[in-house]
Amino acid sequence: MSLKEASAYLLPAIETELQRQIARLDEPRTRPFHEMLTYHMGWTGEGAGPEARGKRIRPLLVLLTCAACDSDWRASLPAAAAIELVHNFSLVHDDIQDNSEKRRGRETVWVKWGKPQGINVGDALFVLSTQAILDLVPIHPVEIVIRAAGILHNTCLDLTRGQYLDMSYETRSVLTTDDYWSMVGGKTAALLASCCALGSLLGDGDESTQKAYLDFGHYLGLAFQVQDDLLGIWGDSAVTGKSSESDLVSRKKSLPVLYGLGKNGPFAKRWSEGPVSPKEVSDLAEQLASEGARLYTQETSDQMSDLALQSLRMADPKGQAGDALFELINKLLIREA
Amino acid sequence: MSLKEASAYLLPAIETELQRQIARLDEPRTRPFHEMLTYHMGWTGEGAGPEARGKRIRPLLVLLTCAACDSDWRASLPAAAAIELVHNFSLVHDDIQDNSEKRRGRETVWVKWGKPQGINVGDALFVLSTQAILDLVPIHPVEIVIRAAGILHNTCLDLTRGQYLDMSYETRSVLTTDDYWSMVGGKTAALLASCCALGSLLGDGDESTQKAYLDFGHYLGLAFQVQDDLLGIWGDSAVTGKSSESDLVSRKKSLPVLYGLGKNGPFAKRWSEGPVSPKEVSDLAEQLASEGARLYTQETSDQMSDLALQSLRMADPKGQAGDALFELINKLLIREA
Repeated sequence: MSLKEASAYLLPAIETELQRQIARLDEPRTRPFHEMLTYHMGWTGEGAGPEARGKRIRPLLVLLTCAACDSDWRASLPAAAAIELVHNFSLVHDDIQDNSEKRRGRETVWVKWGKPQGINVGDALFVLSTQAILDLVPIHPVEIVIRAAGILHNTCLDLTRGQYLDMSYETRSVLTTDDYWSMVGGKTAALLASCCALGSLLGDGDESTQKAYLDFGHYLGLAFQVQDDLLGIWGDSAVTGKSSESDLVSRKKSLPVLYGLGKNGPFAKRWSEGPVSPKEVSDLAEQLASEGARLYTQETSDQMSDLALQSLRMADPKGQAGDALFELINKLLIREA
Repeated sequence: MSLKEASAYLLPAIETELQRQIARLDEPRTRPFHEMLTYHMGWTGEGAGPEARGKRIRPLLVLLTCAACDSDWRASLPAAAAIELVHNFSLVHDDIQDNSEKRRGRETVWVKWGKPQGINVGDALFVLSTQAILDLVPIHPVEIVIRAAGILHNTCLDLTRGQYLDMSYETRSVLTTDDYWSMVGGKTAALLASCCALGSLLGDGDESTQKAYLDFGHYLGLAFQVQDDLLGIWGDSAVTGKSSESDLVSRKKSLPVLYGLGKNGPFAKRWSEGPVSPKEVSDLAEQLASEGARLYTQETSDQMSDLALQSLRMADPKGQAGDALFELINKLLIREA
């Protein structure tokens, strides 16, 4: 079974489960509130459709991990929904915190309904995730449900830690690559690690298998983030297409930038002088590369990818879902730089 | 045991448990984040102290209910903390949504650290509540913990419903008292009902006792809110002391206002003409009273108080904690109007 084949029946199941969870708010009196959530999820309103939904990578990862433990993926469906709800809660609040007006090509929730309602929409998505995880009760022994809830909630606390660090870095001038790892560990990596931990717990994997999957998700998240940072400066669209979208313009303190700042050379000097205009992007990206940041970032990404792959091999994923997992890791990590 | 005596040893236990829960964020890298939470809780920063902490009515209600079921109040301590964390999460987000600069006499979290960090502080308090409830695991059978978590999460969803309604009413011109009950049911009443439901569940009360306590908390919350609405217009400080703080000036769509609007008389006419100045407050409050709103509100409050009292009697609270509960209801509901 290819990833495409798996997605063809897993993705509709994910959407149905998400809709079922969010329907808790579908009552006459709170219908407009329900609509704010269905809009964000990409089901209703202007521009609704697959593009507006995102890739649902996280719930897919939960279901595939569960199936690769030789179990029925349905055993992890409420957990897959819970993870996607958490992810979307964090997106809705992120967009408010960053003042982002667009998400997946559409107006963000707060732009449409204002920040006060936007905050409440994020809160509701978060609550729904805690309810979704308890829907595991009819399918699993209660001890397992408690452990799954614990994994989910710990991840959510990691998210708030990562978010705090991310926001505090905006105003901090001295940052090291250590700071970077703490922040990324709390954000992208924590959620992906949680997907695999939940999938293997609910797929009845043994302790060592669960640990291997947890590591897989963790390194996958790190590799994914570092790759994203690389593309944010040297990716096609960042250099040529839309240089205004370069991380150098948005002043994102990504891994290559922190590396460059650590070098204290011409790049660091230019960075400290203030905002970078889209016109300068191409030259400054080249300068940063000449100081070794591109190579360092690529090597770091490769290293994390290798660790992810090793962990996945250790987990020994079974059957067609296992093949799909290997395909997923390749698809996520080998993108054109 | 009087309420005062009970509070003397319950309140310190509540603070210790809350501090223990929030200490999950007390790590070198996230120390300033941890401080944002301890500031809000009234433990650190300018103006820290009992005044800044609020009355901790909700956790007190959990512990007293548990004890009044003839159980050790310690059996419900993590749940008491969870409820207070939820309450404080909603306060932090509320203050951002309402643009309120002061809370319990001090600057609000968002005023001190900005709205983006403020949103994240609220999120963290929320996550911590979900972790606190799982701390019941060593004390209770897992089935009971799952039920407790379910009660907590359902209440949180009610809170977001109530918050949605509250915010949407600000811009809606036609509102009835029915709309009022839905909103208040989701906010104040849901949380107080949840306190009593959790206390009696964890205190091992039988089904009918749990139901009676749930009703008690529900009506207590409604009575409390209606009383608050009454004081917001005809309370001493609203009329004479600080007329700028009258609900008539803030245009709060409280029960007496909705009653007055329904009458469609001189009050409704004046209200529809726009903002009310502090100078007009005294006359307009009198006009509203002359249209029957004060009597109606007082009668409604009395009715809800009676229902709360009846439910409490039905629950048959035991021992000194029971006495303290009766004292609490009197203290909360019989305030000078």
